Amino acid sequence: MHRYLLIPGPTPIPPRVLRAMQRPMIGHRSPEYGEILKRVVENLKYVFQTGNDILVFSSSGTGGMESSIVNLLSSGDKAIALASGAFGERFVKILEGFGVEVLPLRCEWGEVINPRSVARELDRNRDIKAVFATLVETSTGVVNDIKSLGRICRERKTLLVVDAVSGLGVEELRTDSWGVDVVISASQKGLMTPPGLSFVSISERAWEMTQTSRIYRFYWDFKTYKESFEKGQPPYTPPVSLVFGLDEALKMIKEEGMEKVWERQRRLARATREGIKGLGLELLAKGNLSHGVTAVKVPENIDGWEILKVLREKYGVTLAGGQERLRGKIFRIGHMGYIQFKDILVALGALEKVLLSLGHKDFRRGEAIKRAKEAGK
Amino acid sequence: MHRYLLIPGPTPIPPRVLRAMQRPMIGHRSPEYGEILKRVVENLKYVFQTGNDILVFSSSGTGGMESSIVNLLSSGDKAIALASGAFGERFVKILEGFGVEVLPLRCEWGEVINPRSVARELDRNRDIKAVFATLVETSTGVVNDIKSLGRICRERKTLLVVDAVSGLGVEELRTDSWGVDVVISASQKGLMTPPGLSFVSISERAWEMTQTSRIYRFYWDFKTYKESFEKGQPPYTPPVSLVFGLDEALKMIKEEGMEKVWERQRRLARATREGIKGLGLELLAKGNLSHGVTAVKVPENIDGWEILKVLREKYGVTLAGGQERLRGKIFRIGHMGYIQFKDILVALGALEKVLLSLGHKDFRRGEAIKRAKEAGK
Repeated sequence: MHRYLLIPGPTPIPPRVLRAMQRPMIGHRSPEYGEILKRVVENLKYVFQTGNDILVFSSSGTGGMESSIVNLLSSGDKAIALASGAFGERFVKILEGFGVEVLPLRCEWGEVINPRSVARELDRNRDIKAVFATLVETSTGVVNDIKSLGRICRERKTLLVVDAVSGLGVEELRTDSWGVDVVISASQKGLMTPPGLSFVSISERAWEMTQTSRIYRFYWDFKTYKESFEKGQPPYTPPVSLVFGLDEALKMIKEEGMEKVWERQRRLARATREGIKGLGLELLAKGNLSHGVTAVKVPENIDGWEILKVLREKYGVTLAGGQERLRGKIFRIGHMGYIQFKDILVALGALEKVLLSLGHKDFRRGEAIKRAKEAGK
Repeated sequence: MHRYLLIPGPTPIPPRVLRAMQRPMIGHRSPEYGEILKRVVENLKYVFQTGNDILVFSSSGTGGMESSIVNLLSSGDKAIALASGAFGERFVKILEGFGVEVLPLRCEWGEVINPRSVARELDRNRDIKAVFATLVETSTGVVNDIKSLGRICRERKTLLVVDAVSGLGVEELRTDSWGVDVVISASQKGLMTPPGLSFVSISERAWEMTQTSRIYRFYWDFKTYKESFEKGQPPYTPPVSLVFGLDEALKMIKEEGMEKVWERQRRLARATREGIKGLGLELLAKGNLSHGVTAVKVPENIDGWEILKVLREKYGVTLAGGQERLRGKIFRIGHMGYIQFKDILVALGALEKVLLSLGHKDFRRGEAIKRAKEAGK
């Protein structure tokens, strides 16, 4: 059975990337590796739309999130965290753990926090050092208005840190022109590479803050990486084969062009949403829908886990369930990275059959595919 | 030009492992991934020779080292670190950074620290909470007497933490019968998998210590991983394709059997050392030679970097240079993991030609290969 992986990460790996990962191993202190690292960082800058330094860690995206906290802040510092879902809450948890006084801004899961409420809190609390936000909140499928947050933070000289693990290479993100100081991402979503690499871009202003941070860090220390990268070497053994893969994936993105990547993602998202509506299903989010993942409410009287199980076992289609408070209440369709339009159609077709078999019948047969095809033009 | 990679990690990847890494991506919260994770942990226990819990991190070996400190100790605690080279010194540095009062035991690089001096220090300082040691000190090619250290620490009820990044799957290591509380390793050396995964085994006694540690940790928190693994899932997105590769590499090791792996490594090390002597070269270490890496003194009046450069560019043979205070003074031949006897012969043959071309002529031609062949029988 052919398998279709439509989850919000890890995403399917293009054949070119898989082939690149087959290259014989090389030493990470070789001139050859140094050249690849340099090219990868240059191409990441293009994807991040930044001239800032970019560091590459051997870790999951969560490691990258932790690195942004331990390098910038100190115990007792104040920060705002926009927590509109599970990944925003993760920032709150890590911040609090390291002794940062967090002002969490929350909303219903599936909604986003209005940037104006961030401005209001910043004006009320002049001692806030940084704002932590999520580009795409993977748990609910919404996208935050980073452009407005960038403007608000710049005006108030507050640092803006954005978790773009799920958003980079999917949603429009202009690190420099929007004024985002620190952007965190990872290899396994929009970047079409297996998981195991995280990336952090660091503005001049953020570098200045690293000098006053008093949290001790060794593995995550930005300065260690920067100094080592400047010598053409990573400080510790990097995931060489994943870097081979990333190098190829970044070439693919560059060949296509960022604007076109974003446009392709918009088209896939539109097709998915129209298909879902054609199945008589309801989206979790009312607005600010992300282009990388769509969260769908499980119809009443149907077991959400059963939908996912039958899809996987009978049709080879893997979707994701809900996380934490949304467990069992939603399912999520990932359409970021190397997902093709036909994968969306296959998933919608299988979903139609599974829903019918489970008793959800209140929709016109074939309507999902039809609407998806129209929207995906 | 065929390339020969004889460095002490990352090591060449067996075709079986490369093929396994080509499997289509799967979700890390799927039952399928849960089964692989379970099997990988079971097989790691065999390689570690332990019944203790083993956790798998997305990080380099250094991340595993850091995790052992932040989970076990608190600022102000006392610890001994055996620092016989660059990696022992890394423990000292991380420990000190996190506020641990370190008593470093040092020796000439190329020698090892006598376990009796550890016993003496432990008897003098009854408040020492843990001893940190390195199985194979990669920077000098020596192996520490972990068995004796285990006995000494057990007798005094002091925790023993061993960095076996370079040693696991190469040197005899019997975690449980030697009484090693925490063993740290990584994927890219004896385990024949690309870098990007680190492993930590944790004894009951070590688990108890995690309860009193007051260093905050999020990404490295042992308890988070243990609880998540018990549900068949990693807490954060793991390097799925590397885990596919590791799964296959561990099967290979199990098929061969640990005793035979150790015996094969001993044979390769013997052949390498005899070959080096046949070239009229001197080993850095006088005794306690590791079976994974051999450090060789650069002959006087010859530029060590030139040897490595010509070997690489003209013969496709990559060896490693010296680190830190041994920079330019030694070169190192890695013979751990998926290194074949013929690779050693190729390296020795190329080395003979390069040495001759650079003016080192005081040895009998062909002697290196002859002695290596005899020793490798």
